[in-house]
Amino acid sequence: MTILLYDLVGSDPARPFSPHCWKAAMALAHKGLDFKSVPTRFLEVPKVEDSASKTIPVIRDGGKVVADSFAIALYLEDAYPDRPTLFGGEGGKAMARFIERWSQMTLHPYLGAAVLMEIHARQDEANKVYFRQSREARYGKQLEDVPAGRDSGLAAFRASLEPLRSMLSYQPFIGGQTPLYPDYIVFGAFQWVRVTSPFAFLAPDDPVNGWFERCLDLYDGLGRRVEAA
Amino acid sequence: MTILLYDLVGSDPARPFSPHCWKAAMALAHKGLDFKSVPTRFLEVPKVEDSASKTIPVIRDGGKVVADSFAIALYLEDAYPDRPTLFGGEGGKAMARFIERWSQMTLHPYLGAAVLMEIHARQDEANKVYFRQSREARYGKQLEDVPAGRDSGLAAFRASLEPLRSMLSYQPFIGGQTPLYPDYIVFGAFQWVRVTSPFAFLAPDDPVNGWFERCLDLYDGLGRRVEAA
Repeated sequence: MTILLYDLVGSDPARPFSPHCWKAAMALAHKGLDFKSVPTRFLEVPKVEDSASKTIPVIRDGGKVVADSFAIALYLEDAYPDRPTLFGGEGGKAMARFIERWSQMTLHPYLGAAVLMEIHARQDEANKVYFRQSREARYGKQLEDVPAGRDSGLAAFRASLEPLRSMLSYQPFIGGQTPLYPDYIVFGAFQWVRVTSPFAFLAPDDPVNGWFERCLDLYDGLGRRVEAA
Repeated sequence: MTILLYDLVGSDPARPFSPHCWKAAMALAHKGLDFKSVPTRFLEVPKVEDSASKTIPVIRDGGKVVADSFAIALYLEDAYPDRPTLFGGEGGKAMARFIERWSQMTLHPYLGAAVLMEIHARQDEANKVYFRQSREARYGKQLEDVPAGRDSGLAAFRASLEPLRSMLSYQPFIGGQTPLYPDYIVFGAFQWVRVTSPFAFLAPDDPVNGWFERCLDLYDGLGRRVEAA
């Protein structure tokens, strides 16, 4: 049966942009599972699957509803053990959590602030109101002021990728010779920017950009089906 | 047969201090293998095992000599598959490389500079000369000037531990419920400081400090056998 992925979009239903939903989409593709993206706007999230979660991704797999990108990956690994592994064993499950926290703590604050206005611009009017209110409360400042450090912080952001960059001199993916779930964790953060903004957050000759391009190629170019902004 | 671990020391042979040698010691203990630390000074490193490597750790396991802490962990995992796993599968082997690069790129530059003078002070006269020359060439400045950013950089260093700190709200070790090799990677960096300097690089109430204390307890307190400086 086709799995449903509730996937965050703005006014264009064909441009899912949530980093966390992209993690889930890539995990589903990695497992070779049939899935259908259900375009979902911010204001629709609380009603998804009888209010299953305050956030998406949420997936429905037959009778089973699972929320949270990491929990979805763990669920898929358990439910489909005969399909390609997402973690490469129990050690990988544990270490992926470190990488998830690294991505969330190191990459998300800068990238999320950098493209905030562009995400806002891609919402319809009602969702624009929600987005402004919720983000101004979160950041404690006017929406327009949040990306102020984008240019001045770019060099530090690129430097913060050094662990990934250095790792790529040993192996082509975080998962080793082939990608595993932690590759999709970091991919999600980058795809969030690629889909919403033309901001060149990676230098073209950065090995990290080469890795991102390899990830965009995966699963018949799943990530490229949404054109860069 | 007892495995030999060539272990970096200063003038006191009972105080091994190299972060990389500590990774190997913890990996050997994790595997439950008998090993003997061979105290080795900087100037003796090039002669270890017929010049097997420019750096230590080096181990001799019967007829086999292996250099480089990560290579030693991979060797032990392959050579002793029936003993407790260091990686928890192939995914863990790959992801541990990312964590090794994170530790090396994020923790080592600050910590190594912070305790440089204290490492120098712990060498005998001939090794002091070697250490000063090699480190002044590496840093491009006088040895005494290298730790200048220790106090001003402390807050940023502690902030850089946020991925580890946040992960600890999910699980007690990087390896999950029990430690794996990436725990020893980060442990090695912290033990390097603990053994050489009284510098309080971690706040006592930091969950990261709680994790470090748990690591010090492992294997009958292997890490605590060397008293804090």
